[in-house]
Amino acid sequence: MQTLQRLTVIGVGLIGSSFALKLKQLGLVDEVVGCGRNRVNLIRAIELGVIDRAESDPTLAVADADLVLLAVPLGSIAPIYRRIQPYLSRNAIVTDVGSAKASVISEIAGLLGECPANFVPGHPIAGRERSGVEAADSELYQQHRVILTPLTHTNTEAITRVSQLWQAVGAQVSMMTASYHDEVFAATSHLPHLLAFALVDMLNEHPELGNVFQYTAGGFRDFTRIASSDAAMWRDIAIQNHSAILKWLEAYQAELDKLAELLNKQDATELHQLFTAAKTARDAHIVNRAP
Amino acid sequence: MQTLQRLTVIGVGLIGSSFALKLKQLGLVDEVVGCGRNRVNLIRAIELGVIDRAESDPTLAVADADLVLLAVPLGSIAPIYRRIQPYLSRNAIVTDVGSAKASVISEIAGLLGECPANFVPGHPIAGRERSGVEAADSELYQQHRVILTPLTHTNTEAITRVSQLWQAVGAQVSMMTASYHDEVFAATSHLPHLLAFALVDMLNEHPELGNVFQYTAGGFRDFTRIASSDAAMWRDIAIQNHSAILKWLEAYQAELDKLAELLNKQDATELHQLFTAAKTARDAHIVNRAP
Repeated sequence: MQTLQRLTVIGVGLIGSSFALKLKQLGLVDEVVGCGRNRVNLIRAIELGVIDRAESDPTLAVADADLVLLAVPLGSIAPIYRRIQPYLSRNAIVTDVGSAKASVISEIAGLLGECPANFVPGHPIAGRERSGVEAADSELYQQHRVILTPLTHTNTEAITRVSQLWQAVGAQVSMMTASYHDEVFAATSHLPHLLAFALVDMLNEHPELGNVFQYTAGGFRDFTRIASSDAAMWRDIAIQNHSAILKWLEAYQAELDKLAELLNKQDATELHQLFTAAKTARDAHIVNRAP
Repeated sequence: MQTLQRLTVIGVGLIGSSFALKLKQLGLVDEVVGCGRNRVNLIRAIELGVIDRAESDPTLAVADADLVLLAVPLGSIAPIYRRIQPYLSRNAIVTDVGSAKASVISEIAGLLGECPANFVPGHPIAGRERSGVEAADSELYQQHRVILTPLTHTNTEAITRVSQLWQAVGAQVSMMTASYHDEVFAATSHLPHLLAFALVDMLNEHPELGNVFQYTAGGFRDFTRIASSDAAMWRDIAIQNHSAILKWLEAYQAELDKLAELLNKQDATELHQLFTAAKTARDAHIVNRAP
């Protein structure tokens, strides 16, 4: 594979750092420029060998880069793209890691007049409880998916290049439309996060039961693990993908109405069927799936 | 502590076996009689040293026992109690491990005329994905809670005895009323199980998105882990504790209505506050709690 001469990572956190670190280990990049507002973090990134050079100004950081990875919070992707656009090399490819795709694409199109052909919208399905450059792990993407949601006018070579690089760091790349992506992740990721936040919030707001958290065990810990996720990140996702999330939240509320009715009627047969169907589906698709 | 001469475990699964095994290791019981309908399981329990003797008939199994542990499914506790009652020694203590308490107590009272003074209702907060005697683990109860919900007329010595035995196997014993127990576990355990079953069920029933499970990652796996729980066990819990579960399900639906409204209004400030409150509560009570 052709080596990158200069990779610029804007946002030197877990996601961007892990990508850069693995490419460096594989010898697939000559120089990594890291850009961020936190100088201490950038110095640490140099010490850890994640980046070779630090820049605080994104317009300077992207100079002569052949790939720019926008690994910043969802709400900052389009505004940063607008700032760097005049300073990009003619052949520079830009990609991002935002958890919602249609909103990022339409914001960029809105700010730049159209969505650039060299922009390949992406979403690596990977995360850890720890964040920041200290958590960087060159093996983060092994056996994880990366979704790319190119537009019809996106440059084919740019898509191929981004796809190859993600595969090189260990990921399995899937292509889909931005709207399908947003539906699927609203249902399987954004909604569950909101459900977990809502449950913890409800228990926290009912002091008449006392501190009920003391009676919880492993099941509750796992169910609510995602409620310990970063609140600002999830605010951004909730806002940016609100219409797909609302659609699935309504479908879920209908499912809970059905459940409430079964409980009300004490319908043991139907409850058993519902639980069995769910257990069977999860065991088939999650527990027993190939790694 | 005074040694048990004969412990009878009715239902030789994970919960009953782990209790018996630890008491035997500690030398706190002279003989363990195991009772169940599955002969292969009982023979295996003898091979594993969990029980000393097997009986398929509960009325014979309880003869001369000083403690009887009813570790059978929730719906079978009261019917089995009625069967064994005439065959219990005068001083025999009976305890159970059911996940709902008020219904068990009222069913027993209904079948026997009153809830016996020697019956100590209990609920160990422990479980594993694996079940059956093969999963028996003498350390299962270390740092786990056991809740006892005695009635006002329950024999104080019986409460103390059961409490001491649970502490001996490593558990931390809490006392509360059956109705408080059922409220707390409806909110923190039964409701989350139903929410997880409902989410998997919903995704499974929307084929228009294709197999969305393939795009899920660790967050979804953890959130839905409890949806792989035994369907018959959760049917019983849902039926037996339906009124407390319904109450908390309604409170949760109100919480989701609030969330839907915030998404609809795209109220970033309020969403951020809700997520922050949840994350703060979980981090304080779950992530950072003393072991």
